[in-house]
Amino acid sequence: MDIKNIVVVSPMYNELKTLITNKGIQKNFRFLSEENFTKNDLLWADAFVSFNTKKDYDYSQVKWVHSLGAGVDRFLFKKKWNEEVLLTRTICSFGQRIAEYCLSYILKDIQFHDEFQQLKVHKQWKPKTPKLLNEQKVMIYGTGEIGQQTAKILSLLGVQVYGVSLSGKEKEYFKEVLPVEDHFIRLSEIDFIINTLPLTEKTEKLFDEKVFKNINNVGFINVGRGASLDEKALLDALHHEHVRFAVLDVFAEEPLPESNPLWENRKVFITPHISAVTTPDEAVDCFIETLSCIEENKPLHNKVDITKGF
Amino acid sequence: MDIKNIVVVSPMYNELKTLITNKGIQKNFRFLSEENFTKNDLLWADAFVSFNTKKDYDYSQVKWVHSLGAGVDRFLFKKKWNEEVLLTRTICSFGQRIAEYCLSYILKDIQFHDEFQQLKVHKQWKPKTPKLLNEQKVMIYGTGEIGQQTAKILSLLGVQVYGVSLSGKEKEYFKEVLPVEDHFIRLSEIDFIINTLPLTEKTEKLFDEKVFKNINNVGFINVGRGASLDEKALLDALHHEHVRFAVLDVFAEEPLPESNPLWENRKVFITPHISAVTTPDEAVDCFIETLSCIEENKPLHNKVDITKGF
Repeated sequence: MDIKNIVVVSPMYNELKTLITNKGIQKNFRFLSEENFTKNDLLWADAFVSFNTKKDYDYSQVKWVHSLGAGVDRFLFKKKWNEEVLLTRTICSFGQRIAEYCLSYILKDIQFHDEFQQLKVHKQWKPKTPKLLNEQKVMIYGTGEIGQQTAKILSLLGVQVYGVSLSGKEKEYFKEVLPVEDHFIRLSEIDFIINTLPLTEKTEKLFDEKVFKNINNVGFINVGRGASLDEKALLDALHHEHVRFAVLDVFAEEPLPESNPLWENRKVFITPHISAVTTPDEAVDCFIETLSCIEENKPLHNKVDITKGF
Repeated sequence: MDIKNIVVVSPMYNELKTLITNKGIQKNFRFLSEENFTKNDLLWADAFVSFNTKKDYDYSQVKWVHSLGAGVDRFLFKKKWNEEVLLTRTICSFGQRIAEYCLSYILKDIQFHDEFQQLKVHKQWKPKTPKLLNEQKVMIYGTGEIGQQTAKILSLLGVQVYGVSLSGKEKEYFKEVLPVEDHFIRLSEIDFIINTLPLTEKTEKLFDEKVFKNINNVGFINVGRGASLDEKALLDALHHEHVRFAVLDVFAEEPLPESNPLWENRKVFITPHISAVTTPDEAVDCFIETLSCIEENKPLHNKVDITKGF
């Protein structure tokens, strides 16, 4: 594939420009903010590098699109994609980051951080024994790069980790992987659910009333995509204690609108899509590695399967 | 050693009685609360099993004292001990428990739990990238059972772990172990300090003004003994940001008196001595294992070195 002109569109276009320029790559680049990016830039480009797409822009004319994020739903979900256009995605320390994010909220729960903080306010000394990680059962939805790294870290610490995937294929660090059709059979035993799934037509509103009715007193953590969750069903499940608390890093609409009732629910923890941030350094390293694999015709481990959607 | 009569003194004496009775051990037992335990019980006993000692009671007449906790300062610190009396202590899942406790507060800090919770109250969406464990340097005081298990778990997750001990002897899972005289040389690089040291004359008020002046913006976690900390020096260090926050599970006086200013400092997290709880099951298992080693003249891995004090 012959790549000459590359357009990079990002809120952090300046940092990316400095980092890429320092690497001395022999290509023509345009580094642009989302506002300044025009259809003409796209006509000029062989390759498009961004987190995002713009409405009414035609991405089928470039040879290669590289997503600066791990998720590619903004390129594929409910959209047509020209299969001749190569689509790649950023893979970096997302797994480690998401694993630490999830672990922090599991430990916060089993170590009773909030209870002890409340007791402190009232100067009360009331011992309560924390639970141990090796007493916890966690179900991770998605057994790819991110789900597996999370399973690795949790299982190293003694957590019993189950997985759910499209295929149900066994994977290292999971005690058992269930195909998505059968995930109900283990749900009643589970202490924590972690969603890491990409957004596709199969995962849209996967976490709905039916799922929540099958669980009891569970901690629900969403680090996948907001649209995989039926928010109304979650609020009901919190009310009826099927879900004990929810930790949400992703939302169907981001930033989460002020009017959204999730903000006011005291059992909901909200973080602003920070569990798997791409740092400019890592984004540039992954982009350059992908570019050199393309030019040298080497296999790409971060190529997106358009029919699967991830 | 011939053990016939054993007195067990504990607030959980009833649970211990049930568990020990179920094991069918051929000894004479008295299971008592602290209030009902008298000097006559001690005169009757060959062995004394408890968390605690009573003032004016003479423990030098029994053959064996078994501490239901990991720490034995209540038996040895600023007290005389008849070296002919065997002293053993409970070793069980303390290491795992304390490691998870410390990890939970390190993650709470680097994942900005409190900042995001504050933003949620105001419905504000302000991304901030969490820090990673592999960017953190932790200094653990005490490289015994508990310190080493904590080092193991933190280093598995990528944390750079340094140790401080009396001898400075290298130990697995520590990048480097410093003798206590030299610990200042690394202090300025450290992000978190964890104290797991037993209370002895050498560790009393070890964390004083001199130590805190050498650190900057550090998270200080005390799971050792309260009397190893100079509380006034800590409050000053919090005020001058040498210490960013403190997590205290142990105190010179427990329960922590209502009048203690630590309660009102918003940079101090207080837990009621719960980081290493002995469950009745574990306490009984360890006691029975120790008893059978004594009777069969096997080596004891939980025998206390009276001159060292742990």
